[in-house]
Amino acid sequence: MLERIRIVLIGTSHPGNIGGTARAMHNMGLGDLALVAPRCEPLTADTVSRASGADHIVHAARTVESLEQAVSDCTLVVGASARSRTLPWPMTTPRALGERLPAELADPAARVALVFGREDSGLTNAELQRCHAHVHIPTNPDFSSLNLAAAVQVLAYECRQAWLGQQEASEPAEAVTAPLASHEELERYFAHLERTLIGIGFHDPAMPRQLMARLRRFTLRARPERMELNILRGILTATEQQAERSPSDASTGDDASGDVSPGQ
Amino acid sequence: MLERIRIVLIGTSHPGNIGGTARAMHNMGLGDLALVAPRCEPLTADTVSRASGADHIVHAARTVESLEQAVSDCTLVVGASARSRTLPWPMTTPRALGERLPAELADPAARVALVFGREDSGLTNAELQRCHAHVHIPTNPDFSSLNLAAAVQVLAYECRQAWLGQQEASEPAEAVTAPLASHEELERYFAHLERTLIGIGFHDPAMPRQLMARLRRFTLRARPERMELNILRGILTATEQQAERSPSDASTGDDASGDVSPGQ
Repeated sequence: MLERIRIVLIGTSHPGNIGGTARAMHNMGLGDLALVAPRCEPLTADTVSRASGADHIVHAARTVESLEQAVSDCTLVVGASARSRTLPWPMTTPRALGERLPAELADPAARVALVFGREDSGLTNAELQRCHAHVHIPTNPDFSSLNLAAAVQVLAYECRQAWLGQQEASEPAEAVTAPLASHEELERYFAHLERTLIGIGFHDPAMPRQLMARLRRFTLRARPERMELNILRGILTATEQQAERSPSDASTGDDASGDVSPGQ
Repeated sequence: MLERIRIVLIGTSHPGNIGGTARAMHNMGLGDLALVAPRCEPLTADTVSRASGADHIVHAARTVESLEQAVSDCTLVVGASARSRTLPWPMTTPRALGERLPAELADPAARVALVFGREDSGLTNAELQRCHAHVHIPTNPDFSSLNLAAAVQVLAYECRQAWLGQQEASEPAEAVTAPLASHEELERYFAHLERTLIGIGFHDPAMPRQLMARLRRFTLRARPERMELNILRGILTATEQQAERSPSDASTGDDASGDVSPGQ
């Protein structure tokens, strides 16, 4: 189970934190690290010093350009976050997240990503909105910003606790009935949804009013199965075909589907 | 309760770890730090840097010569330790220790000390034998030595969890942030959805193939808020308007995209 939990660090500035993260991971039995657009050289003397024998995890880490690349195969993506932003998202605690992991990872194809943001500014809203849920480590409200490696330590500790609990229970966790959609499939769906909503004149990207964020939140909360997503995309395709047939003026103004071609 | 939990560091070698400990403590709402015979200058630039705003805890720390002096007023002393030494001692886990704290600290005169040893060699047998119990943080057996500040972080986190649990037990549950859709609103939505899917030729009530059941299951799983349902109904209305504009033959059987109409 633990081998299918990935730690994703976005835009890390301090090599020492990458080393500290590797040590915390290895201490708790995690090994899969992805670095998204680090803002420092990941492997320095400081990294090795703080890793204290766990630097093989940094050597083996994948470095990628975007969150999407880091989590495309993951069935559950959870972002570490301070309390709610403008648009509240499903929030969980480290404990509740840990308790959920055995079931989430019962399917051998399932993968979980725990995503941590920049030391100074955390995750962006766009990044947070790509997560199924946000996890908030309960902290002193007057001093809430944990060191990055310390935050990883707490979540990795809860992962291990959950795994140990499962070992003790020794009962196989209940299998998930149907395969869940991957992050990549979900993103394709959201892109398709946005195109369609523009096409039918419901959504104006120039005046987004959090529409896509709200639809993301709703959809991600349901944890769509792959088959459900296929149905939803089928509906979008049928809707687009209607919009194409419909006498032009639908998508007033600013474009996107503006140039309706004369039907071949 | 948290103000009566003391963190005791014995023979610490690295000022950075003292700073990291202070940060972890303040993050979790602890403030009482005692340093026993530190093997470094406790307050250096490294301390302040790692404390990241919590160095007042190091300024306020008591520095003493022996464990006895650091814990003399404590009613429970727990030493952080690797697995059992020559003489087995009562062992606890961070979780079980946390759960025990509210009762241990119910008496306002009670005080708890959590004792951490040297970075390289931990606590001596003599020190361990001055503890009521030992706490072992479950780790990867192949890589069991946590960074000192990381070990403090895990125990301080469990202290805070225990304290929060106690607070919740005595407070009414938090209100739900946004009103959920009622059963009636959901049923109106599903009826609207079905009409629309028929209108765009995606759904044939004579050949339902569990389509509506699947869409219900997906939607209900997300527990829609009233406002989310309003957005979804807005999308359905926009879709219907497209379908109405579209030259009639849309809902013919199963072709849907076959005959592209001449776009006005």
